[in-house]
Amino acid sequence: MQNRITNLFGIEYPINQAGMIWCSGWKLASAVSNAGALGIIGSGSMYPDILREHIRKCKAATEKPFAVNIPLLYPDIDKHIQIIIDEGVKIVFTSAGNPQTWTSILKEKGITVVHVVSSALFAQKSEIAGVDAVVAEGFEAGGHNGREETTTMILIPLVKNAVKIPVIAAGGIANGKSMLAAFVVGADGVQIGTRFVASIESSAHDSFKKIITETPEGGTMLAMKKVIPVRLIKNKFFNQINEAEQKGASIDELKNILGRARAKHGMFEGDLEEGELEIGQVSAQVHEIKPAAEIVKNIWEEFLATKKSVAEL
Amino acid sequence: MQNRITNLFGIEYPINQAGMIWCSGWKLASAVSNAGALGIIGSGSMYPDILREHIRKCKAATEKPFAVNIPLLYPDIDKHIQIIIDEGVKIVFTSAGNPQTWTSILKEKGITVVHVVSSALFAQKSEIAGVDAVVAEGFEAGGHNGREETTTMILIPLVKNAVKIPVIAAGGIANGKSMLAAFVVGADGVQIGTRFVASIESSAHDSFKKIITETPEGGTMLAMKKVIPVRLIKNKFFNQINEAEQKGASIDELKNILGRARAKHGMFEGDLEEGELEIGQVSAQVHEIKPAAEIVKNIWEEFLATKKSVAEL
Repeated sequence: MQNRITNLFGIEYPINQAGMIWCSGWKLASAVSNAGALGIIGSGSMYPDILREHIRKCKAATEKPFAVNIPLLYPDIDKHIQIIIDEGVKIVFTSAGNPQTWTSILKEKGITVVHVVSSALFAQKSEIAGVDAVVAEGFEAGGHNGREETTTMILIPLVKNAVKIPVIAAGGIANGKSMLAAFVVGADGVQIGTRFVASIESSAHDSFKKIITETPEGGTMLAMKKVIPVRLIKNKFFNQINEAEQKGASIDELKNILGRARAKHGMFEGDLEEGELEIGQVSAQVHEIKPAAEIVKNIWEEFLATKKSVAEL
Repeated sequence: MQNRITNLFGIEYPINQAGMIWCSGWKLASAVSNAGALGIIGSGSMYPDILREHIRKCKAATEKPFAVNIPLLYPDIDKHIQIIIDEGVKIVFTSAGNPQTWTSILKEKGITVVHVVSSALFAQKSEIAGVDAVVAEGFEAGGHNGREETTTMILIPLVKNAVKIPVIAAGGIANGKSMLAAFVVGADGVQIGTRFVASIESSAHDSFKKIITETPEGGTMLAMKKVIPVRLIKNKFFNQINEAEQKGASIDELKNILGRARAKHGMFEGDLEEGELEIGQVSAQVHEIKPAAEIVKNIWEEFLATKKSVAEL
């Protein structure tokens, strides 16, 4: 199968692994890329030197295309951009910020740019800013997502209608069936986060990986909408935040509870009670920790099998 | 196409119109049934005598199967059940309550029973209670829905895995593409609400129908989670509730703001500012008010066309 996404990235399957803080370093990204999908280094949790190291190791580990994700609100954003250019990274996914600011600078260097959005309006703004594709991320996605709470099923057709560039669906997708469902409503590709956090090569702490495979339906919830919305596993920290929110806590009060380095503490260091555990709703469908290549293969085979069974409906 | 849902209800297409307060009386239900789908009278906003009148008029208007929806928390529930039995209604959709209480009584009378759930756990409980099928309703749906905020994309596969009885997907479905997407992730049928509110035969006030066709992406939001979650159009009343919730208002304070008859006031009488306007996120994709039969035909034709195009992916 060839389509606009496989052609844009030069990959075999229209699947990319999400660039995620604390979980997607060079090991995961190169494993995914070697399996024929697009691996992404998540730079949001990396100091500039660390990012450089991950890019170099990724280049050494794969000859296939890979990308780097940059949250545009990152404080050292200009250093990150410079490293990406210096190291010859060919694909960049930007998120959490205005694509107007950096897209043209990256494009001038011949870099393919994809921006992550949670609404059709921002998809249009991204297209105007010159990006090559958008990731449209629904309410069910893990980590930080949109304030309007539009779900993948509704968001994808709206974004598809709003732009001419390819649309990558994110949020709620962890297997070949949900991948095909996203294609049915208009996606040209899918971005998968949660399932790859629960991979052998993910740099998430083993305890975090394990709890993902045990998270039941209803085990995550969007929190901290007043600060910046984030989907979390319901643990002790979540309960504390949730209780404060129910009482009408202010932004400052919530920020105080959050404190510093909670995400690292939870996802990277494995504190399942006090840590901030960002994950998608679809964790309720993820029950195994597997090698990334096997995950890619399973998703793709199920996508093809489901496509066949749809014809027989 | 014949499947478990068309066979269960004796209908042509595996589509049912949601039973909705103030919007789905005999006119809409009979129009949908005459078009080959399953029309449902929403009894939640009807006094017993009114319900009896609607059932009789529906029987006079169609020879095809139709159903009645009953919220099990309805105060006059026993009267409603008796009327349904007396009038020979053959299909009942129950919601908002425990299916254990009434299912066996209805089944003894030869009535087909479907229960509306928002989690796999309650789908299992419904199956044990003896229902013939479940409606699994995602976070994006209008009106009252689940506290766990599981979206349709994630809920349907979970429910499908949890039960043997047929699964009808609800929430986020308004056309043939989203219908097919629901089938891809495991649905045997779809329940469509929002799009039928914006039909000629719906008893919603014309102003409410019109505002549905103008509701933008992000124009609805889940509110009153402390009382009972409900998805509302963002109007003056919603803003008032939302502001109170941001400040940590108690259940009683929220109930006070809600007051009485707001839903009737908004949806049936057309007060777009002070009324409670319950509608799905998918209103962002609904731009026209059409006859119900045309809606059924459009959805079905798009479903078939999309099925064909999937084979060519």
